[in-house]
Amino acid sequence: MTRGLLTFLSDFGVTSPYPAAMKAAAAAICNARFVDISHGVPPGSVRGGAYLLWSVAPVCPAGTVHCAVVDPGVGTERAALAISTGGQIFVGPDNGLLIPAARRLGIAGVYRLTEPAYWRHPVSTTFHGRDIFAPAAAHLAGGIPIASVGVPASAFVDLAFPPGHVLGDHLSGEVLWVDTFGNMITSIPGSLLSALAGTADLIVETARGSLRAAAARTFGDVPAGRGVVLVGSDGMVEVALNRGNAAAEMAAEVGTMLRIRQG
Amino acid sequence: MTRGLLTFLSDFGVTSPYPAAMKAAAAAICNARFVDISHGVPPGSVRGGAYLLWSVAPVCPAGTVHCAVVDPGVGTERAALAISTGGQIFVGPDNGLLIPAARRLGIAGVYRLTEPAYWRHPVSTTFHGRDIFAPAAAHLAGGIPIASVGVPASAFVDLAFPPGHVLGDHLSGEVLWVDTFGNMITSIPGSLLSALAGTADLIVETARGSLRAAAARTFGDVPAGRGVVLVGSDGMVEVALNRGNAAAEMAAEVGTMLRIRQG
Amino acid sequence: MTRGLLTFLSDFGVTSPYPAAMKAAAAAICNARFVDISHGVPPGSVRGGAYLLWSVAPVCPAGTVHCAVVDPGVGTERAALAISTGGQIFVGPDNGLLIPAARRLGIAGVYRLTEPAYWRHPVSTTFHGRDIFAPAAAHLAGGIPIASVGVPASAFVDLAFPPGHVLGDHLSGEVLWVDTFGNMITSIPGSLLSALAGTADLIVETARGSLRAAAARTFGDVPAGRGVVLVGSDGMVEVALNRGNAAAEMAAEVGTMLRIRQG
Repeated sequence: MTRGLLTFLSDFGVTSPYPAAMKAAAAAICNARFVDISHGVPPGSVRGGAYLLWSVAPVCPAGTVHCAVVDPGVGTERAALAISTGGQIFVGPDNGLLIPAARRLGIAGVYRLTEPAYWRHPVSTTFHGRDIFAPAAAHLAGGIPIASVGVPASAFVDLAFPPGHVLGDHLSGEVLWVDTFGNMITSIPGSLLSALAGTADLIVETARGSLRAAAARTFGDVPAGRGVVLVGSDGMVEVALNRGNAAAEMAAEVGTMLRIRQG
Repeated sequence: MTRGLLTFLSDFGVTSPYPAAMKAAAAAICNARFVDISHGVPPGSVRGGAYLLWSVAPVCPAGTVHCAVVDPGVGTERAALAISTGGQIFVGPDNGLLIPAARRLGIAGVYRLTEPAYWRHPVSTTFHGRDIFAPAAAHLAGGIPIASVGVPASAFVDLAFPPGHVLGDHLSGEVLWVDTFGNMITSIPGSLLSALAGTADLIVETARGSLRAAAARTFGDVPAGRGVVLVGSDGMVEVALNRGNAAAEMAAEVGTMLRIRQG
Repeated sequence: MTRGLLTFLSDFGVTSPYPAAMKAAAAAICNARFVDISHGVPPGSVRGGAYLLWSVAPVCPAGTVHCAVVDPGVGTERAALAISTGGQIFVGPDNGLLIPAARRLGIAGVYRLTEPAYWRHPVSTTFHGRDIFAPAAAHLAGGIPIASVGVPASAFVDLAFPPGHVLGDHLSGEVLWVDTFGNMITSIPGSLLSALAGTADLIVETARGSLRAAAARTFGDVPAGRGVVLVGSDGMVEVALNRGNAAAEMAAEVGTMLRIRQG
């Protein structure tokens, strides 16, 4: 039996002390192991944060609690949520951030955080990560029932990634994330890649550029400097440049629409 | 009863292996949970590091030990300190880095690290974080009495943030920190903001620029792109631009003097 | 008795969620304490990663397991390794990344990871860090015998840092790493510095620039803005500029050849 896991995700930045403040608040409450998913979400990018949570959550063991804070509406009337799935719990603002990940695991219950007994006091108006989300998440990681943190939510702000699809002779989708290597993770499910099978030569196009690429299993299947289209570790179609930066080459970023067709 | 907490703060940079070397040195000595406050302090910025420690320490549980290393004088005659407060201990160089945080919690005792039994050997001349501060901090986190690490210090290098104040018709203070969002945390206590009450229109000025802003409770109380002056999560006056970067707009950085008056 | 240590090193970048995915995969398997060595290795820089691992491993306690992933050949035929030394275990790709560190501690056994029972399934073609290296490392940190992860390797890809040496009237070596402060760690063993003893005035030269420097014990032994040559915390010769950036001054980077002579 391993110790519980409590993850943290935010747009506070990799040099920020705010993640430490959240962990300090949690450390007094539970003995879970802390893991940072990322604090490098672009400032205010709820979609970017939602993608990262969606990507990492399936790897986490049962019992994991996630404290996710990309929260441009902090201190306003936006609600705070705890969402249970079969085996994990997501805590964060009611702005869509938690939804793709929770839905991927299967939403079992959605609660509004309304019970101040599980918060840090006084509650600031600008840092609910430290004062509400982290303490509540730590109490949940410590084993309190999710129903004790508040009341069932009758509705919540939804967020869904635009599903990639086959459109005529090409695949169409959106860039969900650009990783450090410049690899673009798209919203096109890997299973659709077979629609273009029969040729190894592909063209990836955006409004600003195009890239010749080969369908392959992994980066190193093509020569250095060559474009490659593959099914990535998330199960989604990825576009990369072996030992190069595909996103820079195509001037693409999170949200860029792209299509892939035979060359 | 939760496990003890051992924090690390430095100017080593977020890609540096030096924080890991400190943690590796500590891992052999104690079972405390490790939390990084930040390793992104600007190189050599004792004041910047002091602010971060001051900001996060009050959130930490009793028993926390802090290992803080912004140490341009490493290997010279500057002393090494351990400072006890009511419930926490601060370990680091005698250059002022620890003082604002320790004073905020209430200094109970100041010791010089002179007992080599709690160091890693051989002690290098350039990395006391690994060889002196982290091992000593880990021994303290493991429960040895603070008096065993050395001798009482009769004096220490002081550091205080310039207190913000009311000056005629305006508030005057200094930028203590600029966070990832470009929000400026100032040295003006939040309680002084009432001196400007009665109008929602404020002007924030530095030598290089000015910003129209509204007094508000939180960022989202003003429209996107609008300046806002509020009491931040540290209890200090903060200047922000809702969904924008106030520090960039005003060309302000740590140490910039600013004043706030009615518009 | 302290808890075991499991370290992580990669070129995934400091904002990447991939390190968290590796830790999530490991968290289900073992209770070791996690420490990140660095995720800021330049993309694909096997040599840079090898240096960091070489630098930090000697500080780690007996029983430490290292999971290191700088892996441009992921998914190709390159093998995956676990290497035992006297007291530590190194897990990662067979591309030289692990070798300098393992050799520094003394290689006792080299195994290929061939036992899928210790992997995460399904195994992706692009993220063996999550699916093979981290799970195998976590099982090893949890105490399984190293021989159970696979079969003895008859050979492996080697990597050695070019040994610095005395050449006529100067020391010659290569920049192994540039730290956040711009200090250059070289491949010249500190013991060779005595070959230039007798003068405090040195000249450090590369193909692109030169720097006047003084031999000293630590940075603060010279005035601010002055070059300094010293034996660093790794035992290697380092070139620095007190409170300045030596690498920027000399336009040097990892791999740059340099020589040091009397001025």
